Amino acid sequence: MSKNNLETIRMELTPLFDYINKYTDLTLEEQSILSARFKIRKYLKGQFVVQNGDTCKYENFVLSGCLKTFYIDNEGLEHIVMFAVENWWTADMGSFITQTPADFNVQCIENSYLAQIHYEDLEQLYLQVPKLERFFRIIIQKAFVSSQKRIINNFSLPAKERYLQFREQYPQIEQRVPQYMVASYLGITKEFLSKIRNQLLLE
Amino acid sequence: MSKNNLETIRMELTPLFDYINKYTDLTLEEQSILSARFKIRKYLKGQFVVQNGDTCKYENFVLSGCLKTFYIDNEGLEHIVMFAVENWWTADMGSFITQTPADFNVQCIENSYLAQIHYEDLEQLYLQVPKLERFFRIIIQKAFVSSQKRIINNFSLPAKERYLQFREQYPQIEQRVPQYMVASYLGITKEFLSKIRNQLLLE
Repeated sequence: MSKNNLETIRMELTPLFDYINKYTDLTLEEQSILSARFKIRKYLKGQFVVQNGDTCKYENFVLSGCLKTFYIDNEGLEHIVMFAVENWWTADMGSFITQTPADFNVQCIENSYLAQIHYEDLEQLYLQVPKLERFFRIIIQKAFVSSQKRIINNFSLPAKERYLQFREQYPQIEQRVPQYMVASYLGITKEFLSKIRNQLLLE
Repeated sequence: MSKNNLETIRMELTPLFDYINKYTDLTLEEQSILSARFKIRKYLKGQFVVQNGDTCKYENFVLSGCLKTFYIDNEGLEHIVMFAVENWWTADMGSFITQTPADFNVQCIENSYLAQIHYEDLEQLYLQVPKLERFFRIIIQKAFVSSQKRIINNFSLPAKERYLQFREQYPQIEQRVPQYMVASYLGITKEFLSKIRNQLLLE
């Protein structure tokens, strides 16, 4: 890669470095090592970053845009597991870490710019920049904690409370995605979501 | 700690080292460093390792025994998030990583021997034995993937299928815990679980 190209990518990766530096301190040299391995890719609204059945080869950091991770059940129903916007990571983690076919789909709800790291490049990066082990250890712990809370909320909270928690966890997303996707994330019907929203307006 | 004590602890920690060495290679010196920081503690059946409202100070590796992690909702209902047996880790991860009060309870279903590492000791261990970053990064990724699958299963699989998956994930646990705990883990009533089991016996 030419020096100019590397400089451009490095500039475009600024949000990624800012994000990583919240947890650790990348030197300029380490930023260059990352810049040489991350790729930036634009996806159009509707395009798939991961498709069920394919192996998920990239871990993706969202530079801009909005995506959903979902699962299609045996009856053909879509269940949204998570959304991702700026400064979130998205992938089918199970597929990525085992390099086996994905259960989930990751699709763009808006045109999206992603910083992508290939599985093998990330394995190399862990060796070249060991502080990335710490960084990913910490952010995955946080993701695990959210995921555990979601299991509990699904069991124990009424839909209205789950909706309020959703708004807290994803403050900007409700304006960016269709209502039926919010309903799918909450595991309720669009009609029921609409009823909850009307109730809240009256409170 | 005397040399003899350290040797004893080191021997008792053998299952922990064997487990860690599936993912990385601890030198004998590193095993000594771990032995000096891990503590072994016996809990009786019914005792709590973590109580809701307290800060979870230890990450716990199960040397022997069986524990449940659960949440009590506003109606006083118990929801089991996970079980842990030999070679599993258990804690309220959210409380542990932020050192704030726990949402969950971790209680012994059997008398249990745990290898415990205090939050601050673990932070020191990450610095002294950096390969533990990698180890924990990998096992937490796996825990996150299971957790994501559980969210999807709860949304999309009928209770019978969830029960079959439970038996696959926790092969020995069904014989070790009361049926109402299995029902709580699955989010169904004890009566419904009993109906499913009878159906399966007839198949």
